[in-house]
Amino acid sequence: MEFEGSEKKLEIIFNSDTNLLKAEQSVWDAIVKEANATILSMIENDQQKAFLLSESSLFVWSDRLLLITCGQTSLISSVQEIFKHFSKEDIDLLIYQRKNEYFSWLQPSSFYDDIKYLKSEFEGTALRFGEMDEHHHFIFHTKKSYTPQTDDNTKEFLLYGLATDVSKKLTNPILSALDIRTFLNLDKILNGFIIDDYKFDPYGYSVNAIKDSLYLTIHITPQEGSSYISFETNINLEDHLDLFIEILRPSSFDFLNFVPCQETHVTDAILKVKFPYEHKKDIYETLSCGYHMGLTSIYLTSSQNNKPMIIE
Amino acid sequence: MEFEGSEKKLEIIFNSDTNLLKAEQSVWDAIVKEANATILSMIENDQQKAFLLSESSLFVWSDRLLLITCGQTSLISSVQEIFKHFSKEDIDLLIYQRKNEYFSWLQPSSFYDDIKYLKSEFEGTALRFGEMDEHHHFIFHTKKSYTPQTDDNTKEFLLYGLATDVSKKLTNPILSALDIRTFLNLDKILNGFIIDDYKFDPYGYSVNAIKDSLYLTIHITPQEGSSYISFETNINLEDHLDLFIEILRPSSFDFLNFVPCQETHVTDAILKVKFPYEHKKDIYETLSCGYHMGLTSIYLTSSQNNKPMIIE
Repeated sequence: MEFEGSEKKLEIIFNSDTNLLKAEQSVWDAIVKEANATILSMIENDQQKAFLLSESSLFVWSDRLLLITCGQTSLISSVQEIFKHFSKEDIDLLIYQRKNEYFSWLQPSSFYDDIKYLKSEFEGTALRFGEMDEHHHFIFHTKKSYTPQTDDNTKEFLLYGLATDVSKKLTNPILSALDIRTFLNLDKILNGFIIDDYKFDPYGYSVNAIKDSLYLTIHITPQEGSSYISFETNINLEDHLDLFIEILRPSSFDFLNFVPCQETHVTDAILKVKFPYEHKKDIYETLSCGYHMGLTSIYLTSSQNNKPMIIE
Repeated sequence: MEFEGSEKKLEIIFNSDTNLLKAEQSVWDAIVKEANATILSMIENDQQKAFLLSESSLFVWSDRLLLITCGQTSLISSVQEIFKHFSKEDIDLLIYQRKNEYFSWLQPSSFYDDIKYLKSEFEGTALRFGEMDEHHHFIFHTKKSYTPQTDDNTKEFLLYGLATDVSKKLTNPILSALDIRTFLNLDKILNGFIIDDYKFDPYGYSVNAIKDSLYLTIHITPQEGSSYISFETNINLEDHLDLFIEILRPSSFDFLNFVPCQETHVTDAILKVKFPYEHKKDIYETLSCGYHMGLTSIYLTSSQNNKPMIIE
């Protein structure tokens, strides 16, 4: 059975009565444990802490947290645990997001289950970006009025079906974390960042990188037939997309963007794609919680592969 | 929660020691019941019987059966029941197929579970046509050498995301089976066929049509957000695809074709598509059980919809 790379994501922003950086390590251990993940390592600077998890990442700033988990984790259970340590009343914004899964029968809950719980706790809206038969992204967000900071621009870059030689390379068990970091050119892009990366056994790779309030996290599920790589960041990732596409040559990818409503409209951020890639879909919406959200889906026109895959 | 329109399909061809048309009705009742479906009605001629089910259809000829089920049915359990009534040793060919599901967490088993059972009973091959993140079709077929009859050409035509006005029309609860049959122009196309159709409450539509050894079955899951229509037939459906696309205006569709190996190669049957539709992918393989199998996926370039769907 393949690994479910598709992530679940939780972002919570608190009002100024809360300072998350003052919380004990045991709080984060407990929250991550509820999702059925564990903390592998941590890096920090004066603005944030970044935890590398057995399944993805947790970032903590004074006023907000971002918890991303993949595999068969139960992120919704972490929400309940968070309320044991921080006051629900101090929450200005909660966003809960799930990408459609490809082994969804192995998940402890569906998005539909999760929103039942979230709607019992918050007034909120649940949306699906994308058709059921395409890449699609479920999002729940609170309805409470919120004005994001002007630089609060989040990007997700999700790549599916890496080129066969890339999958082969990245599943080579002798590869080190440094080999993968070098392959992705990360040291060049992340100049001045603290970097924490981890190579899973026999394969799989995660990296967290931080600088001031900037962060980047990348998670690689390299196995052929269900390969997937995700980037989530607030750096100017757009400048590097062409490089990553050239290195990884995916069969398709999504770019998601959250921009504060008072800033440029998200549609201005829509990607220019070059042959052999083609634009498949743009979906955008102004969320009542203060962000424009956009999804662009792109795919490779000239099929790399016209043979079926053998299932062992 | 939406309805899972995606079908599971079982085709078994027996040697001349078996005449399935002589089996009692109770045998088909038992086989269908194991899948968690029930027989609603039956039509027949001198060459075949066609059963309309609560979840799709069963066709029986003297030497073969075709059982298609959708929703949360357990088709794999029917395979075990079939062996109670007919000898496994008389099987020349078994094909078991599943389209990727969109509510797969509600299924009683996954394709991976199912092939474990099938591989315990038969020497066979399991394949996936299509990438995980696209429309994809799982197929298990027996390895035993088999030469299909020259006219044994099966087509599946699967339409996703009907145009909004079509979904609205087809979910109107006052619509009768005859209204839907007329909307699809079926009486014109199926001249001389016996037709058996059924309108589900509050919506959903199934039709079986037979003439000599020819058959056509159509199943409609019309609800917006997860609408889906499937056609399966051995008639010359290619002549009518343009008409159905014009009527239903799906956001994407698949065309699958099984052609005997001794006939024209399946790639010759690849569809010509007209703007605003665009070719996404062709996958083909020569199956060791005697057929060329081809999958063509097509999608609408000019997106009908760039807004997310609200989940209630």
